[in-house]
Amino acid sequence: MTVIKVAILGFGTVGEGVYRTIQSHAEELTAVLGKKVEVAAVLIKNKQKERNVSEDVLLTTDFEDILNMPELDIVIEAIVDKDPTFSFLKKAIERGCHIITANKEMFAHHGQELLELAEKNNVSVGFEATVAGGIPVIQTFRQLLNINRIQQVQGILNGTSNFILTEMREGKQSFAEALSLAQENGFAEADPTNDIEGYDAFYKAMILSRIAFGEEPNWHDVEREGITAITSELIEKAEELGLRYKHIAQISKSGNQIKATIKPVLVGKEHPFYHVEGVQNAVSVHSDIVGEITLQGPGAGMFPTASAIIEDLVYVCKNNAPAPRLTALTT
Amino acid sequence: MTVIKVAILGFGTVGEGVYRTIQSHAEELTAVLGKKVEVAAVLIKNKQKERNVSEDVLLTTDFEDILNMPELDIVIEAIVDKDPTFSFLKKAIERGCHIITANKEMFAHHGQELLELAEKNNVSVGFEATVAGGIPVIQTFRQLLNINRIQQVQGILNGTSNFILTEMREGKQSFAEALSLAQENGFAEADPTNDIEGYDAFYKAMILSRIAFGEEPNWHDVEREGITAITSELIEKAEELGLRYKHIAQISKSGNQIKATIKPVLVGKEHPFYHVEGVQNAVSVHSDIVGEITLQGPGAGMFPTASAIIEDLVYVCKNNAPAPRLTALTT
Repeated sequence: MTVIKVAILGFGTVGEGVYRTIQSHAEELTAVLGKKVEVAAVLIKNKQKERNVSEDVLLTTDFEDILNMPELDIVIEAIVDKDPTFSFLKKAIERGCHIITANKEMFAHHGQELLELAEKNNVSVGFEATVAGGIPVIQTFRQLLNINRIQQVQGILNGTSNFILTEMREGKQSFAEALSLAQENGFAEADPTNDIEGYDAFYKAMILSRIAFGEEPNWHDVEREGITAITSELIEKAEELGLRYKHIAQISKSGNQIKATIKPVLVGKEHPFYHVEGVQNAVSVHSDIVGEITLQGPGAGMFPTASAIIEDLVYVCKNNAPAPRLTALTT
Repeated sequence: MTVIKVAILGFGTVGEGVYRTIQSHAEELTAVLGKKVEVAAVLIKNKQKERNVSEDVLLTTDFEDILNMPELDIVIEAIVDKDPTFSFLKKAIERGCHIITANKEMFAHHGQELLELAEKNNVSVGFEATVAGGIPVIQTFRQLLNINRIQQVQGILNGTSNFILTEMREGKQSFAEALSLAQENGFAEADPTNDIEGYDAFYKAMILSRIAFGEEPNWHDVEREGITAITSELIEKAEELGLRYKHIAQISKSGNQIKATIKPVLVGKEHPFYHVEGVQNAVSVHSDIVGEITLQGPGAGMFPTASAIIEDLVYVCKNNAPAPRLTALTT
C-alpha cells in the first residue's frame, strides 16, 4: 500500500490535535483514501520541549528540512502567525504539495494568491479550519452549493465575543468580568484585541465572501466594530425589548456590489442567531434556490479544528483540481 | 459543447420546480459542468393537462418512450408513489443513466439495491431530496464527514408535524385545528397519516441511518410514534416546565447495535431543536472528532426540494463512483 506523507507546521493545540487525530483515525483514513496517512515531520519552535510524537517523525525547527524531504504530499499549517507562514506555504505548493491551513489572518491576506499558485501547480488548498472551526461551512459552499446563487451570508464567527455577550446577559456580568472569564477558560488570548475588536471575524468574513461570491469588498469600505462598546445597561435594555446583542458578520451582494459589515446587531427571537450562545459559531446562508440554511457548531477547540483539517485532507487528496466556484461564474 | 440529457419523471410541484430551475440556472450549470443541461423528456400522468414546457421536450405517459431515447444521461424521479418508481429507476440504471430521486418511501425500501446496482453499472445515485428537503444533510454525511465517526443523529424530519406542534403551542389550537391549518396551507395531505403517524420521518430516518452508519436497525425494532396523542393540555403543562414537544427521529450506534426511535420528545431550551419551529427541518449530528453540528432549513417546498435535486445533478455528473462511506469501514 502506498503512503501519503504529511508534515505538520506548528505543534500547539491545533497541530497536536491533528497529529493525534491522524493516529486515532488511521483506519478510517486508509479506508477512505486507499492509502496510509503518515506524519513524516513536524515543524516546532522549541527543540527542548518534550513532544508526545512517535520516534520516526522528524522534529525540526527549520522549515527547509521539511521542504528537502525526499517525499512529501501534504503540508498542514497550524501556526498562528501570518509570517513566515505564507512563504512556507508558497514553497510547499511550488514543491508540489497540497496545503491545508487553519490560519485565517494569513489566508484572508494571501488566500487568493495561494489558490492561484496551487492551480498552476496542480495541487489543492484546504482552508475549512480558517472559518467557524469544525462547522463544514467552506466545504458546504465549495462542494454542496454549486448552482445556488448565494445572496447573503451571516455569521457568528468569533466564539470569544459570543461567549462574552452571553455571559454579560445570562450571568449579569460586566464586560471586564466576562472577558476575564473567557481568558480563564482559554477562550480569549492575553491580548484579546483581535477577538473583541472584530478583526478575527473580519478576516473570516473576507474568506467567506470570496468563497460565496468569488470576490471581496474593498477592505477599507467594510464597517468593522467589535463588542467593546456594549455595556451591561445596553444588554439589559435590549432584553426588556426581547432583543439580544449578537456580533454578526454580514456579507451580501446586490448587483455587482459586495457589502460587508462586522458589528454588534440587535436580533429578535425570529433570527436564527438569537439562540446561538456561548462559544458556538453559526453561519446562515441565503441562496436563490434553497432559501435560508443555517449551520451551527463548535467554532474552535483542539478537535473541532482538527476535524476540519482532517476532512480537508480527504478533500485535497481527492480533488487535484481547484473547486469550480472559485473560477466559475458567480453572478 | 456537449450536452447532458435529462428526463424528469413526474411534473407535480417537485418535477416542475426542477424543470424551472434547470431553465433559470442554465448558465450556472454550464459553468460548473462544462456542458449544457437539457431536459429531453418529462413523464406525465395526464396528456390532456397543459404544461408550461418547451416544445422540444418529449412529453409522454409511457416510461418506455424515455428508456428508448437514443441519448439519455440522467433520470430525475419526482413521483410520489413507491411503485412503479423503483422498477423505472432500476431500468434507468441498467441503461447506464445516473439517477436522482426525491422519493423517501421508495428509497427507504429499495435504496440499498439501487446503490448496489448503480455501482455495478458505474453510475451514481443522488438522494439528497429524500431527507430534510433543501438542507444538504445527505451530502454533508457523504462528502464532508468522511473521517468523523458518527455516533448519533437526531432530526426534525417532518415539517407537517413540527408545524402542527408549533401551532398548538403558539396559537393555542387543538390538534384538529392545527391539522386543518396545515392542510389549508398545503403543508399536509388530505390523508395526513404518513406525516402525523411518523411514517414519513421513519423512512427518512432509515435513509439517514444507512448513510451515517452504513446500516439500518431492524425496522420492526424501531419505536415509531406520531404526534396524534399530544393534546393541548400536555403542551401547556410542558410549557409551564419550560419544555416543548418536538417530533424527533433519533438514531445512534453503540457497539454494533443501531438503535432508532421516532417519537415526540420533550426538550428544554438547551436542546438544538427547542427553537426549530413551523415547517422547518433540522438535523443534528454528533461525531467523535468534531462534536455536535446542527443544520437547519426548509424541509420541503418546490424550490428547496429542487435545490437538493439540482445540486445532486452536479454530484452525479462529477462522481461516477459511489461515495466511500457506503462501502467503507463504518465502525
